[in-house]
Amino acid sequence: MSPIDALAELLGPRHCLRDAADTAPYAADWRGSYRGAPLAVLRPGTVAEVAAAVARCGAAGIAVVPAGGRTGLCGAAVVSPGGPAAVVLSLERLNRIRDIDARDFSLVAEAGCVVQRVQEAAAEAGRFFPIAWGAQGSAQIGGMLSTNAGGIRTIRWGNARDLVLGLEVVLPDGRVLNDLRRVRKDNSGYALRHLFLGAEGTLGVITAAALRLVPALKRVETAFVAVPSPDAALTLLSRVMGSGAEVIAFELVQRICLEMVAEHGPHLRLPLPLDSPWYVMVELAAAHPDVPVRAMLEASLAEALEAGECTDAVLAGNEAQRTAFWRIREDYPEFARMAGPAISTDTAVPVSAVPEFLARVEQVLAERWPEGRMVAIGHAGDGNIHVGLRAPPGVTREDWMTRAGAADMAVNEIAVALGGSFSAEHGIGVSKLHVMQALKDPLAIEVMRGIKRLLDPRGVMNPGKVLPAN
Amino acid sequence: MSPIDALAELLGPRHCLRDAADTAPYAADWRGSYRGAPLAVLRPGTVAEVAAAVARCGAAGIAVVPAGGRTGLCGAAVVSPGGPAAVVLSLERLNRIRDIDARDFSLVAEAGCVVQRVQEAAAEAGRFFPIAWGAQGSAQIGGMLSTNAGGIRTIRWGNARDLVLGLEVVLPDGRVLNDLRRVRKDNSGYALRHLFLGAEGTLGVITAAALRLVPALKRVETAFVAVPSPDAALTLLSRVMGSGAEVIAFELVQRICLEMVAEHGPHLRLPLPLDSPWYVMVELAAAHPDVPVRAMLEASLAEALEAGECTDAVLAGNEAQRTAFWRIREDYPEFARMAGPAISTDTAVPVSAVPEFLARVEQVLAERWPEGRMVAIGHAGDGNIHVGLRAPPGVTREDWMTRAGAADMAVNEIAVALGGSFSAEHGIGVSKLHVMQALKDPLAIEVMRGIKRLLDPRGVMNPGKVLPAN
Repeated sequence: MSPIDALAELLGPRHCLRDAADTAPYAADWRGSYRGAPLAVLRPGTVAEVAAAVARCGAAGIAVVPAGGRTGLCGAAVVSPGGPAAVVLSLERLNRIRDIDARDFSLVAEAGCVVQRVQEAAAEAGRFFPIAWGAQGSAQIGGMLSTNAGGIRTIRWGNARDLVLGLEVVLPDGRVLNDLRRVRKDNSGYALRHLFLGAEGTLGVITAAALRLVPALKRVETAFVAVPSPDAALTLLSRVMGSGAEVIAFELVQRICLEMVAEHGPHLRLPLPLDSPWYVMVELAAAHPDVPVRAMLEASLAEALEAGECTDAVLAGNEAQRTAFWRIREDYPEFARMAGPAISTDTAVPVSAVPEFLARVEQVLAERWPEGRMVAIGHAGDGNIHVGLRAPPGVTREDWMTRAGAADMAVNEIAVALGGSFSAEHGIGVSKLHVMQALKDPLAIEVMRGIKRLLDPRGVMNPGKVLPAN
Repeated sequence: MSPIDALAELLGPRHCLRDAADTAPYAADWRGSYRGAPLAVLRPGTVAEVAAAVARCGAAGIAVVPAGGRTGLCGAAVVSPGGPAAVVLSLERLNRIRDIDARDFSLVAEAGCVVQRVQEAAAEAGRFFPIAWGAQGSAQIGGMLSTNAGGIRTIRWGNARDLVLGLEVVLPDGRVLNDLRRVRKDNSGYALRHLFLGAEGTLGVITAAALRLVPALKRVETAFVAVPSPDAALTLLSRVMGSGAEVIAFELVQRICLEMVAEHGPHLRLPLPLDSPWYVMVELAAAHPDVPVRAMLEASLAEALEAGECTDAVLAGNEAQRTAFWRIREDYPEFARMAGPAISTDTAVPVSAVPEFLARVEQVLAERWPEGRMVAIGHAGDGNIHVGLRAPPGVTREDWMTRAGAADMAVNEIAVALGGSFSAEHGIGVSKLHVMQALKDPLAIEVMRGIKRLLDPRGVMNPGKVLPAN
């Protein structure tokens, strides 16, 4: 019996897909940027099945590529063409919320739960699960944790990693490391779970997690603000944070991004005229209804107007307006794709270094690629700005990659020089391996390789991802 | 030249202590519970000196025991008698705050900085460093991070681990892993820093850390509350948390603890009569001055009185009263020591399991050690209760350890059975090795041993700590 036949017997033929028509959706990521054909697609229905499947793949020398919603941006959940023969291990059938405990502010979810479902379950229990980003309606908990997802709320509640209390992981040899505890304090040895969080499936398969919930929000206020410069934006951030208000989002948006929205999303009404070089979206919240959030936001903005940190501001008057503000931000990536080819990046710098970062990037891009156009948008409150370099009209994607592909590295180098990261929230996958090789501390890579060899000596788990080849 | 002579040459004779009179303070922990004589005490003044000293010790087969304020409770910072010949590496001279950036809400401190000094530096910059516990006036940042310290504020801001942005570590071979970045989002490979946080110096020497600061608190309100039972206390916690107020401490105190305070601390005025079996200290805060924290606390307590969750409550009327409330909690460990020998524990369970944990513990202790008296106090908001078993009058510490030493394991077993931890915040050191051996998942220990061998193949760093012998 072939190894794949044995896996079909283990999981049942309906859950070991081999026909090209059935495996096709799993042979590419969500956007279609990465493609690779798996030997088969495994859809185990229990942790024991995950463990048995991983063990058998290891014994047969077949690589395992874990996959969730496949919404990642770096190709981690797709088979690498040219790599070893591999199956895709989809966690989609492990989609139960095993437990929710409102008094404990915790929830235990399996890897295949869609993120939005976890948000909804928390809300039904009068609680809030704060990780949020555009793909939350498709992304799954396993992928969220394996990429240590960020998004628009990290300024207040951290990345996905920070909301994990316990983890259940199938190791590359098929044994199960069960640390699925809802305990908030545990100093019994090394913090193993942090190895698997953000490891993109290269050290094992996350099958379930105990997640921290927070009190439901009772007051949320959002402002759209015109600011003269990134420096002014950061001074405004410092003012609002320093006021003691609870800032749950602080996004910086370059005017060109809103111009693209105006051009491609005529149904979206822009809240302010496009006469400012930069804009900020700031959101304050409170879990207690008696916190005067609106007055707090108005007071900070009034001071900022007085101080010249902003030139105009509008608060969402109701929930519909607030949703409309966020539609602009959330739909932007789609409008950006419609607007033509661009080099994109995912850097972070210390929050206070954002203005210098943008100034240096603007200068370097203008000098080296004067025909391109810089676009910048991002989570300024975390120092995480997504800078892009747009092609001039008429230039194809291939042409632009050839001419300006190095812009990616130029931006990354500036971020690293300022004490930042070349991968803030998207991860490495395959698309950033060359940047890991070029810019990551070689000693850190050496330690990471040692950990990979220790946990996965046969190289079963997601080979060719995260760590550049030796 | 002997290896110690070479170390004296490297660091200067004043910073390589060999006389027994000089090394004596470093041969014991703060409380005098653990003792072990070092070959010498090294006091490097720079990271390069730390690196060179560690490398030389490794080459000479001398073990290295890193030490900070030596306030840890498990003996991790003291040479193990019977273990390999070892030096104590004191980080006390690496005591600079290298950088503080208010706009960035961050601070870079060297390992030897006293924790309170970091709190003060943050306050001077209009910010707040939230880790706080009794020993903060002596404990150092390196020890705080190496033990992943908890304390009374973890309910709101997490453990020490959660406040680290970046780390600088001397590896066991003397190389420096420099990841001292103030960046808030970084998904460039495995999260190596979490290995060293809480590793008690067994994987390397933390020499500096970039720490997260939070906005300064503008409103703090504290209540001392009489509650009929732990279940009522947890219902009260759920009510206050669910109200959306910012709970920054929630301590549960058994009446006997206050009786010990009354007996041994006659200068401390107890805020409530001692007619309730349990008490709670709850503290709410806000960083914005317009948050009506006092009204919020009063409203929750009024509801709780109405619902029978509490029977009496008093709010601190001013800062002096608030300080007096906390004196009771902070001085309790000293009064407990004066009150005679006791077996002590450091468990955590899921927050909602605290009442069941205490009920089971009470039953087991009463059955097996009817002559002892249970005492319970702790951070109930984190599920972290310190249960003790007091000796009857006249019984010596040695006697009590012989008769009731197993109470420790009995309590630990109950915590683990409820999905909890046998070491919530104190760590393992040497005092809990037997518990690691008995109650930790063997697969987790196997992975930890692999990581130890990977990073420290010669076993230079703090041998005999954290991981039980094979």
